[in-house]
Amino acid sequence: MLTGLERHRRESTELLLLVAILILTILTMWVLKKRQVRFLHETGGAMLYGFILGLILKLAATPWKRGTGEIHECVNLNTTPKFLLVNVTERIHEYYHVGEVTPNPQALPAGSILHKMAFNPEIFFNLLLPPIIFHGAYSLNQRQFFKNIGSVLTFALIGTLLTCGIIGFCMFGFVQLMVRLGHVVDGDFSLKDCLLFGSLMSATDPVTVLAIFTELHVDSDLYILLFGESVLNDAVAIVLTYTISSYDAATGGSAFHVGSFFLSAARFLGVFAGSFTMGLAYTVITALVTKFTQLRELPLLETGLFFLFSWSSFLSAEACGLSGIVAVLFCGITQARYTIHNLSSEAKVRTTQLFEFLNFLGENFTFCYIGLAMFTFHTHVFQVFFIFGAFLSIMLARACNIYPLSFLLNLGRHRRIPRNIQHMMMFSGLRGAVAFALAAQDTSTEAQRAILSTTLLVVLVTVWVMGSATVPMLGWLDIRVGVDPDENPGEAPCSQAAVEDSLAAPRPQGPLTWQLWKALDYRYLRPALTHEGPPLTTTLPLWCGPLARLLTSPHAYENQEQLGNADDSSSGKMDRAGGGQESPGEAEASTTQQDDLLEGDLGLGTHATPVWTD
Amino acid sequence: MLTGLERHRRESTELLLLVAILILTILTMWVLKKRQVRFLHETGGAMLYGFILGLILKLAATPWKRGTGEIHECVNLNTTPKFLLVNVTERIHEYYHVGEVTPNPQALPAGSILHKMAFNPEIFFNLLLPPIIFHGAYSLNQRQFFKNIGSVLTFALIGTLLTCGIIGFCMFGFVQLMVRLGHVVDGDFSLKDCLLFGSLMSATDPVTVLAIFTELHVDSDLYILLFGESVLNDAVAIVLTYTISSYDAATGGSAFHVGSFFLSAARFLGVFAGSFTMGLAYTVITALVTKFTQLRELPLLETGLFFLFSWSSFLSAEACGLSGIVAVLFCGITQARYTIHNLSSEAKVRTTQLFEFLNFLGENFTFCYIGLAMFTFHTHVFQVFFIFGAFLSIMLARACNIYPLSFLLNLGRHRRIPRNIQHMMMFSGLRGAVAFALAAQDTSTEAQRAILSTTLLVVLVTVWVMGSATVPMLGWLDIRVGVDPDENPGEAPCSQAAVEDSLAAPRPQGPLTWQLWKALDYRYLRPALTHEGPPLTTTLPLWCGPLARLLTSPHAYENQEQLGNADDSSSGKMDRAGGGQESPGEAEASTTQQDDLLEGDLGLGTHATPVWTD
Repeated sequence: MLTGLERHRRESTELLLLVAILILTILTMWVLKKRQVRFLHETGGAMLYGFILGLILKLAATPWKRGTGEIHECVNLNTTPKFLLVNVTERIHEYYHVGEVTPNPQALPAGSILHKMAFNPEIFFNLLLPPIIFHGAYSLNQRQFFKNIGSVLTFALIGTLLTCGIIGFCMFGFVQLMVRLGHVVDGDFSLKDCLLFGSLMSATDPVTVLAIFTELHVDSDLYILLFGESVLNDAVAIVLTYTISSYDAATGGSAFHVGSFFLSAARFLGVFAGSFTMGLAYTVITALVTKFTQLRELPLLETGLFFLFSWSSFLSAEACGLSGIVAVLFCGITQARYTIHNLSSEAKVRTTQLFEFLNFLGENFTFCYIGLAMFTFHTHVFQVFFIFGAFLSIMLARACNIYPLSFLLNLGRHRRIPRNIQHMMMFSGLRGAVAFALAAQDTSTEAQRAILSTTLLVVLVTVWVMGSATVPMLGWLDIRVGVDPDENPGEAPCSQAAVEDSLAAPRPQGPLTWQLWKALDYRYLRPALTHEGPPLTTTLPLWCGPLARLLTSPHAYENQEQLGNADDSSSGKMDRAGGGQESPGEAEASTTQQDDLLEGDLGLGTHATPVWTD
Repeated sequence: MLTGLERHRRESTELLLLVAILILTILTMWVLKKRQVRFLHETGGAMLYGFILGLILKLAATPWKRGTGEIHECVNLNTTPKFLLVNVTERIHEYYHVGEVTPNPQALPAGSILHKMAFNPEIFFNLLLPPIIFHGAYSLNQRQFFKNIGSVLTFALIGTLLTCGIIGFCMFGFVQLMVRLGHVVDGDFSLKDCLLFGSLMSATDPVTVLAIFTELHVDSDLYILLFGESVLNDAVAIVLTYTISSYDAATGGSAFHVGSFFLSAARFLGVFAGSFTMGLAYTVITALVTKFTQLRELPLLETGLFFLFSWSSFLSAEACGLSGIVAVLFCGITQARYTIHNLSSEAKVRTTQLFEFLNFLGENFTFCYIGLAMFTFHTHVFQVFFIFGAFLSIMLARACNIYPLSFLLNLGRHRRIPRNIQHMMMFSGLRGAVAFALAAQDTSTEAQRAILSTTLLVVLVTVWVMGSATVPMLGWLDIRVGVDPDENPGEAPCSQAAVEDSLAAPRPQGPLTWQLWKALDYRYLRPALTHEGPPLTTTLPLWCGPLARLLTSPHAYENQEQLGNADDSSSGKMDRAGGGQESPGEAEASTTQQDDLLEGDLGLGTHATPVWTD
């Protein structure tokens, strides 16, 4: 039996092994970067090293001996007790806190250290994923994102539901085939399980591909569509998975039950909307607090506040039974839109670097863990047909997602999505951290274990194979590279359109919802949450007077004057308008450039991952 | 019984409460800073809010109902099993992982949320303390520290042992008094318990005082003596506490046993030296890796490597059964001396800010927890005499530490420690995180619980009372403020001594050990670990040739040339020598300034905590 000290030393050793892998990954990446080798991103490398470590441990591990080996059957308890009083000869009255339930212990492994490193899915959702998701959302290029918001939402929402459905039904077909061939017992894999698999598989994670895109400066449309889609479809996939897994089969058996379906749909909308609201709420709080406190000489406090409020959005959502990840996602997007403008320039830098660092650690630990999970998960279920079916249905679903939706979007888009970009998007459907974490959440049934094993394989294959093939693919598809991320090829920088756009209030253009959104953002949200935009006292109706005065900062009145001056001398501003990106720090000074106000770009680089310059 | 989901929601809520307290603390600090109120530092504020929260929860909490309330006595087991098979009617074969043992459950509290928030001392040593300790060590002003190294080591080593002994024996006296008065049973408090109390009480934590010192720029000697002492005496106190607690009373009963004593002394030295070596080893690894890889365009990777290696020093020490905290402490000091020079300027900034942020979070969480612990620790033992004795012996021990040692040091110091500074040091013996964490480690006996309760009170009182009284005390003692931290009052900047000092290799001065250290540092360590100093090929003996060539970087040969040039034109360099601090980034360019090389100062401010400028 391990004493507390021995257990502590064992845990320290395990963590040390993981840290060593990350160090190795960093050094490997440096070597590869020096030699301009681009087929392996650090996440793929971390996963590879985790895999190798798992292999080594599996081969080297000694069989684990069980503690006492005796089973004493006692009185039958009706419920699972919280505390168990064990009266042992030398130790009296020791209570054992009933901890995790380890299902199916017969399958516990040979290999003591592997056993101890059995993964804990809680770690993903509570520790590793939140910084990754937040950073992804926070570092979106706001300008590009909101310009393409319609397309991104289409792919993320409709596309995810499509993907889930297609994979679900395809897999159910394969399961029927497997039943007919006698590989599985009928009833092992229900339609619900297949749909669950479909929903968690719909979370794409093209981090490898995006890193390469960043390095090579690929076409900005492709970048934002892929990035935006991956950020938002995480949210949809998580809530969808939760909804499906909580679908109450008891009401209608495994059969489809209309009432349960609508209940699930309502639950989906409720959790999604609730989490979104929670994230937004914390942004509003952070923005208001940073707007009305002058912490500018205290960047450490600013950064601390920002971090703690963002973390609170996660905790509050979890405490309310909503999805903390989804909350933190929308918190990230909105923080980068509003709150960022209230921070001092040093705090902006600190915050960005902090989240970049946390993302770096979180991502690499996660992928290392994924590689290791091949060997630390003890009850793998590899069903060949299921795996084959999975790869097939994923590709099919991706095709049914990308091509039809692109077609529909192209009917309305100002800048169409060309065919080669569609092909690249089709190709870039890698799976990663979120899919794995969702699959790992529950592994109590045979089907769920098969799902996890298959998901693992899918992640390994897509990251390693498709990740390596990205650069050749870009060349083969003739995708533009070396592009300035904020260039708008359809518009010359100094064109009259661009100038007018940037000086005046947003003109009515685009669909009605878009106009409404821009009006809301420009007239109410920005003035309320930041020092920019017209004063609330001018935009809010008269009966909101007191509230407006409360929320309007002195800066806003100054802005108004500048705005008045700018309208008179629009031609003189042409140079500034065409001068490319301004950092948000300067945005306050040049509030006349409304277009730039919509960016929320940090001015430190518009990319999620650092640019590798060799 | 709580389901997994309910437990998760409960934990999220608890964490949210702690985060809310930190946010409140930050906002309160901002308000106080604006009004130039200096009596409360953020750690004191966090502790206060934690205390208030604990009070509210205690008053508001409903009595906690135990789960089943039934006790089923079973077969007597001979050993504590690792896994318990509980055969419950509806759930077959569920194993319970035997978790923490909660001692004396009869004392479990009324108040469900309080019960759940019962503190876990592991959190301190594994999560919260390491960043605090590392940051403290990393942000030492290297120049000041090594100039005063003798005095600092005297206070930290001899002073701590003195303090431990004096408090221990005083408390034993009080315990005897308490026995005579019938307050405690003889045998409850052994001499070992009293010495344990003494050792953990010897860890000072004047974070509040130092923050005020930073803000007001007090006398640099006072600052470094207090800061250096507090950093190093943590190490001594931790190892001492470990040594005392593992003193095998069984061999000699509670009586003093010579063999056991020497075993303990050997253990102390072994753990201390081992942890020191571990920390240093990781610095050597980090320095060599960063020296020979050019990660300069990849500051995120540099920061990541630095962080992971430093963390590894902690994990390795823990895995080897040494003290991770002590390892991380010496790792911090040495990283700031050597590795820092190999980082790009951006990575230096990122690293500093990262650790500053982690320290900020760690410290405030810790002190919040301490305030909360007044109510979450369920088995307080408040013995009035013990508490009274504690305060008395602490003051007595501090006096016996500071005054005699200052007297002895003044016999040899170039710059004597004046009486007012001695008084301030006497006053600044606040206790904090380390003392509390050490006391919280083990609370299985009555004596240990009394120790924890008393330690809590000491921390609360010293931080709140002495923290508030710092500014008046400074005035009353007429301590210099508004001092340039690197000014050497005994030496004019452009004096011949300063110039010579900075241009040539270290002259032989000071005690022999100091000369040996400086030679080691200048001739071997710096050239091996960084790009600075004379090439190893010139300083190492010939038989080390291959190794020297391996470790010498091209820069070192350039330095040698510059050094040759500088010696010829020493007078022309006077302005540069007297020009004050150079940042380490410039140090490589001006390697002729050997004195600056010894600083290791980050050039970003020499203070552990940010300077509050209003």
